[in-house]
Amino acid sequence: MNFASDNVYGIHPRILAAIEAANKGTSASYGYDDYSKRAEEKLSQLFEKEVRAFLVTSGTAANGLALSALAPSYGAVLTHAEAHAAVDECNSPEMFTGGAKIIGLHGVEGKITPAVVEKTLKGFIRSEHDPKPAALSITNSTELGRVYTPSEIKALSAVAKSRKMKFHTDGARFANAVASLGVKPAEITWKAGIDVMSFGGTKNGGMLLEAVIFFDTALAEDFLYRRMRGGQLVSKSRYLGAQMLAYLEGDLWLENARQANGLAKRLVEGLKASNRIRMPLPSDANEIFAVMPKKLHDKLQAAGVHYHDWMPDTLGPKGIAENEIFVRFVLSYATPPEEVERFIGLVKDLVSA
Amino acid sequence: MNFASDNVYGIHPRILAAIEAANKGTSASYGYDDYSKRAEEKLSQLFEKEVRAFLVTSGTAANGLALSALAPSYGAVLTHAEAHAAVDECNSPEMFTGGAKIIGLHGVEGKITPAVVEKTLKGFIRSEHDPKPAALSITNSTELGRVYTPSEIKALSAVAKSRKMKFHTDGARFANAVASLGVKPAEITWKAGIDVMSFGGTKNGGMLLEAVIFFDTALAEDFLYRRMRGGQLVSKSRYLGAQMLAYLEGDLWLENARQANGLAKRLVEGLKASNRIRMPLPSDANEIFAVMPKKLHDKLQAAGVHYHDWMPDTLGPKGIAENEIFVRFVLSYATPPEEVERFIGLVKDLVSA
Amino acid sequence: MNFASDNVYGIHPRILAAIEAANKGTSASYGYDDYSKRAEEKLSQLFEKEVRAFLVTSGTAANGLALSALAPSYGAVLTHAEAHAAVDECNSPEMFTGGAKIIGLHGVEGKITPAVVEKTLKGFIRSEHDPKPAALSITNSTELGRVYTPSEIKALSAVAKSRKMKFHTDGARFANAVASLGVKPAEITWKAGIDVMSFGGTKNGGMLLEAVIFFDTALAEDFLYRRMRGGQLVSKSRYLGAQMLAYLEGDLWLENARQANGLAKRLVEGLKASNRIRMPLPSDANEIFAVMPKKLHDKLQAAGVHYHDWMPDTLGPKGIAENEIFVRFVLSYATPPEEVERFIGLVKDLVSA
Amino acid sequence: MNFASDNVYGIHPRILAAIEAANKGTSASYGYDDYSKRAEEKLSQLFEKEVRAFLVTSGTAANGLALSALAPSYGAVLTHAEAHAAVDECNSPEMFTGGAKIIGLHGVEGKITPAVVEKTLKGFIRSEHDPKPAALSITNSTELGRVYTPSEIKALSAVAKSRKMKFHTDGARFANAVASLGVKPAEITWKAGIDVMSFGGTKNGGMLLEAVIFFDTALAEDFLYRRMRGGQLVSKSRYLGAQMLAYLEGDLWLENARQANGLAKRLVEGLKASNRIRMPLPSDANEIFAVMPKKLHDKLQAAGVHYHDWMPDTLGPKGIAENEIFVRFVLSYATPPEEVERFIGLVKDLVSA
Repeated sequence: MNFASDNVYGIHPRILAAIEAANKGTSASYGYDDYSKRAEEKLSQLFEKEVRAFLVTSGTAANGLALSALAPSYGAVLTHAEAHAAVDECNSPEMFTGGAKIIGLHGVEGKITPAVVEKTLKGFIRSEHDPKPAALSITNSTELGRVYTPSEIKALSAVAKSRKMKFHTDGARFANAVASLGVKPAEITWKAGIDVMSFGGTKNGGMLLEAVIFFDTALAEDFLYRRMRGGQLVSKSRYLGAQMLAYLEGDLWLENARQANGLAKRLVEGLKASNRIRMPLPSDANEIFAVMPKKLHDKLQAAGVHYHDWMPDTLGPKGIAENEIFVRFVLSYATPPEEVERFIGLVKDLVSA
Repeated sequence: MNFASDNVYGIHPRILAAIEAANKGTSASYGYDDYSKRAEEKLSQLFEKEVRAFLVTSGTAANGLALSALAPSYGAVLTHAEAHAAVDECNSPEMFTGGAKIIGLHGVEGKITPAVVEKTLKGFIRSEHDPKPAALSITNSTELGRVYTPSEIKALSAVAKSRKMKFHTDGARFANAVASLGVKPAEITWKAGIDVMSFGGTKNGGMLLEAVIFFDTALAEDFLYRRMRGGQLVSKSRYLGAQMLAYLEGDLWLENARQANGLAKRLVEGLKASNRIRMPLPSDANEIFAVMPKKLHDKLQAAGVHYHDWMPDTLGPKGIAENEIFVRFVLSYATPPEEVERFIGLVKDLVSA
Repeated sequence: MNFASDNVYGIHPRILAAIEAANKGTSASYGYDDYSKRAEEKLSQLFEKEVRAFLVTSGTAANGLALSALAPSYGAVLTHAEAHAAVDECNSPEMFTGGAKIIGLHGVEGKITPAVVEKTLKGFIRSEHDPKPAALSITNSTELGRVYTPSEIKALSAVAKSRKMKFHTDGARFANAVASLGVKPAEITWKAGIDVMSFGGTKNGGMLLEAVIFFDTALAEDFLYRRMRGGQLVSKSRYLGAQMLAYLEGDLWLENARQANGLAKRLVEGLKASNRIRMPLPSDANEIFAVMPKKLHDKLQAAGVHYHDWMPDTLGPKGIAENEIFVRFVLSYATPPEEVERFIGLVKDLVSA
Repeated sequence: MNFASDNVYGIHPRILAAIEAANKGTSASYGYDDYSKRAEEKLSQLFEKEVRAFLVTSGTAANGLALSALAPSYGAVLTHAEAHAAVDECNSPEMFTGGAKIIGLHGVEGKITPAVVEKTLKGFIRSEHDPKPAALSITNSTELGRVYTPSEIKALSAVAKSRKMKFHTDGARFANAVASLGVKPAEITWKAGIDVMSFGGTKNGGMLLEAVIFFDTALAEDFLYRRMRGGQLVSKSRYLGAQMLAYLEGDLWLENARQANGLAKRLVEGLKASNRIRMPLPSDANEIFAVMPKKLHDKLQAAGVHYHDWMPDTLGPKGIAENEIFVRFVLSYATPPEEVERFIGLVKDLVSA
């Protein structure tokens, strides 16, 4: 039973098959292959807008490169205090942007609001002694399992635009957000004011399946240089393109996300039924955050269930009790449904024991 | 007929099979998987020394990250004027090192010598107004198709050591060098004074198959941080590990390189026999540099043969004649031998026509 | 009446005289002059330890360069959330360090504590996904007018050492801290565990009078390169050296700081006596933070008194009332004492009016 | 007798007097003072165009900051192989630009030509694998004592513009160029196509007297942030402004340069007359490059004459003989004319001895 992350699971068979199918003959390299070109076209169709799409090999690189096109070295990027770009990327955004400041804002349930952005910008009173406000970045679905709705994104966009800031979305779990909201991809991206996104497919069935997508294509002007400089232009790029094509084909991306989200919903029900595990954050997508008694946790560990504990600070001043632990479960398209049931049963047994 | 580069060919079947075989169940991610661990062990065996090996996704990133462990931001890296790290990576080494200066030295046939290194360092007379000499970097086999012998490397190492500089080798075509020289991997790396290498397998049968290997393991101390910050730590790292394992298994790496080198040798013979194409640089590995009449070139292009033209500056003051063109052919393990023969036949026909 | 900052006042006559006296004949340049050399010797005497001291032209550069010797690009520097290096230097520490993360910690009255440092480091649970904890930095006297005592510094040093982190102090107002505490310079620097400091004299009578001082001289090994690369090696360095010599001569630095601190003490008394202005933060050195009714503020502005308003967030959840304003007054060695009295009188008059 | 550099001499009395005169009362700081503002106005008058001018503290910083406004991190700056920005600034341009590549071009007598620029750009055939050509930079007067004429600059500008590159001039010895050419400042700057310049006054009578001047003011948009981030915004900025005002007042800058150039001319005559010293490079400004017998050099050294030896590579393939040495003499506005005569006499005596 492994709920540690959605990246512990492998490649979806249709994506693997696409890699195999691409493995014949010669192909142009370094991004000039047909697969990469068609992947860009397919993404334009998906987003109902002519986009520029650049394939890269990691979500961290996608974020850093995307932000480098938005924020100068003397700029500031405002994001949530628990955003991946703020705390999980070991100064990678700083590297790609040449030293921009990534400012983590507090916000309940992993989401930032226009109010907290405005308040922060109000504190930029030292003229050039402060960095230049350059970009806003949100993760959707968020690192805490919630989703931003189109109207929430539009409200943030309005603040960004009023300050001439650009707007980025980290879509490492974009498919899960779309599946959760039941919207079209455009509705939570460019139609809501997003300029650039990190489009992640690795967690949702890919092998190395990440793209930087520009809705404001003017911002992509020099991005070929940025990707190359960033060490993210792979020679045998056809295999990245082939993955993306298979991921989009027949809405595999959405199908996988729906499956993962559905398993999460089932797990939430099952855990709630235990009456020993509470979920202080609503679970909108494929991540579940839960507080459980340490004793129960110890037993689950002993039973070999994999999941991560999380910083209780996330919950703010209320926090957790001494004898409790705060943990995260992540569901994948590939998580066997029977394991979810087995886990629910195990919890039930341990609680009643 | 495609001799444009060794990266226009695909994944070797045994490597692709390894990716498929790895695609079951769950696996630890972000480099903590068993495949990556075993790949490091296998590399230690290959090099007859306990190494630290870090898998990454591009040769450019491997070079930049490797150099970042050797050269501080105020340092200088001395390499050949046509080295990949000097002219083919769009300021990527500058990004990874935080702004070190990559100094391209002149050298016949793509190789630098102790003499040119000494001469350059002698010019560092401005104390801290010059950057600090930090590292030497050689490509083996070189960008111009030649190889450095163990004794040549040792001689360069002696200069580096005398100046407290570290020594890096870009092994994007390392296998071709080993195959050409008939040495053991250790003989042209750590036994000859190399501290760190970029070990490339992508051009020789991999999909994304690159590693930074530390022979001086003390230099690897913080490399986990560097790789993460560099956007080069992929989540589903098992697929990089699996590629490396298959590449090393049964000496596939060497077998492939021998095949490519052998084809190059055959092509050299064939072209020489035409009496219209001269090869000003000896071809030690799988790259051939040739000067041909422009007219012949036009006919080959019309016949759909793929290869790149090259800057004649490479040849120094002698250069080429007005009606000539300087070109490069690269052979891959996967180049169909019959295409080589077909190409030789085509040249013969065109010349005699 | 100008209490806006200590940098609105000019050069102390003895320092100006030293610049003039140095202005004869020729002198070695770029830091190899006798003045710079003697300044380093004098600083060694002052600190009762052989130090390495490097003159630079701004406090921001001093901080950035000092931190660059302590924190790698993939490192984290922990400091107070209102530290100059965290919020007043427009990504300058990020530039000099090559992208290290400057993490601002919360702490009452501008001071960080071992507890908050420990708690923060406890949150670094993501191995290399977090930056490497590299350095601690404190400002003494702090940006909020308080001082760190020797024992407070030692306690922080113990935490730093236990995590193999280096320890930096921003001494932009170091003289005011020494004058306030009545200690020897060594007691709040290397004897308390400080490895490197930014030694500022500009605010206290210099023109451009800043130095980076290494107590752990091993850390200074390549600092000549860092200063040059940082654009901080001036050609006519004798004038920086001459300023430092005059500043140290006859303890001018301490005399000036005592004067400024004394005026601050007098102003605190005077303002308190008004019964309309409260000072939520004790004033240890030459800065005073005060809360006053907005109406009174308006009248003081109308009367042409210069001082800055400050972010009320500094005061934490208690904050200020709607009709209040939070402001800062800074006293200089050169503030005319009669202006302090005039200001106190003005407040008294306005309050009683 | 000191001909080592123009920076071994001190501050011109009128500039020192201006510093003293500025030293009264309070003043706005961090660049918002009246002196800095008036300096910008005066520079606009001098250049007969509304410019944006930013005072900084070193020529190295001026160059780096200026280039950072022209070249992105993935860009290339083309300059002469012996340009200060290429070889005398310890990776400082790399720091300020975030890693742009500074490419040193060969050119006789320290000057680059449209032909060498075109040839270099022709070699940028690897699309994004090459950096993006971003800027051209020339030093005037050059590091080898020559000057660029208005028409030479215009010709380079035409190349730059045709490639959408920006054009920078390093004016560390700009006054000497103007004095030599007998032109107006505008004629060798914006009227000839220069977008941005480093305007140096330190070598010509200042203490720390450097400015970045934008003729294309759109490029200055975010320069306040860049200067602050660069550690180059000094708090007591009035003293930089006051220096600049005095430097421009009554054409002191030009007067000083004429004096230095005149002394250089006299020294050239005197050395030529010795018949033992040859000057392979014409001396247009205040620097003289000379080849002399080593024996003569030894005697001059013994007599205590200060000057630097130089890399003979500068002279290209012709070079110097075994028993010769290549040296540089620099004249300052403050070099005592009698020392020049004394030196000429000494050479004469030694030669005839």
